[in-house]
Amino acid sequence: MSEHDAGFKAALEEAKQGAKEGGIPIGACLVDKDGKILGQGHNMRLQKDSATLHAEISTLENAGRLPASAYKGATMYTTLSPCQMCTGACLLYKVSRVVMGENNTFVGGDELLKQRGVEVVNLKNAECEGLMKKFIDDHPEDWYEDIGDAPKKSQ
Amino acid sequence: MSEHDAGFKAALEEAKQGAKEGGIPIGACLVDKDGKILGQGHNMRLQKDSATLHAEISTLENAGRLPASAYKGATMYTTLSPCQMCTGACLLYKVSRVVMGENNTFVGGDELLKQRGVEVVNLKNAECEGLMKKFIDDHPEDWYEDIGDAPKKSQ
Repeated sequence: MSEHDAGFKAALEEAKQGAKEGGIPIGACLVDKDGKILGQGHNMRLQKDSATLHAEISTLENAGRLPASAYKGATMYTTLSPCQMCTGACLLYKVSRVVMGENNTFVGGDELLKQRGVEVVNLKNAECEGLMKKFIDDHPEDWYEDIGDAPKKSQ
Repeated sequence: MSEHDAGFKAALEEAKQGAKEGGIPIGACLVDKDGKILGQGHNMRLQKDSATLHAEISTLENAGRLPASAYKGATMYTTLSPCQMCTGACLLYKVSRVVMGENNTFVGGDELLKQRGVEVVNLKNAECEGLMKKFIDDHPEDWYEDIGDAPKKSQ
């Protein structure tokens, strides 16, 4: 698993597309066991006034209705550590691996995924982290809303 | 917490509406700490070809973008034990309580919710269970797809 994987590249492109749209710059991509992209997407909180379309949820939604067998051996690439909802979505569909761009900005369900037998890879990608730093510096209130947290008092 | 709560009644009405539409008959309703309904919805897998619009996700989506404070002390009513994705969504937004109609049909994240300090109430409601039994008897493949499982061989 590396930054050269087509799945990671697609997730990063989705994050950049989100940034271009003025949205929260997190992207994701679901790749099946044979390397085929099943779906990809980015966080749509601001674009669609959505409380649930995180990058991974958008990706699963865009992949469409699939039988359980389609997720077997699949990898969810995401530019940021998945929140508890997105972690739960990966567990529901039993994806085999979660590859994240980084978890310095936010740590979601990394440990729960590992406990449940999902392989977790952190690429520690500076570009993913940079996209988030810029967004959070500019729009802290939108970011904290997205992770269900109260804005920090210093901001 | 009882079957007479407005939140539970609304969730059950949503499940029945789902059944009328030919969908998976699971409904949910989010109620804030003061008893105000923030949103409600039902499973839309079949109606919208959606892989993510479970009842609780539909409900959070229909409630719209809210600050973290809005979910404080809130109760998620759902006619069926929430799957791992919906459990994660409740944890993300830190709802205080999950009231389920039943968990005989399916056990989702009941234990994880309790471990994370969420109050969990099971109303053991026969009507909720009856709606699911009829649906699963008629459409087992749609049900197993919804919970990311392979259909049982006997079906």
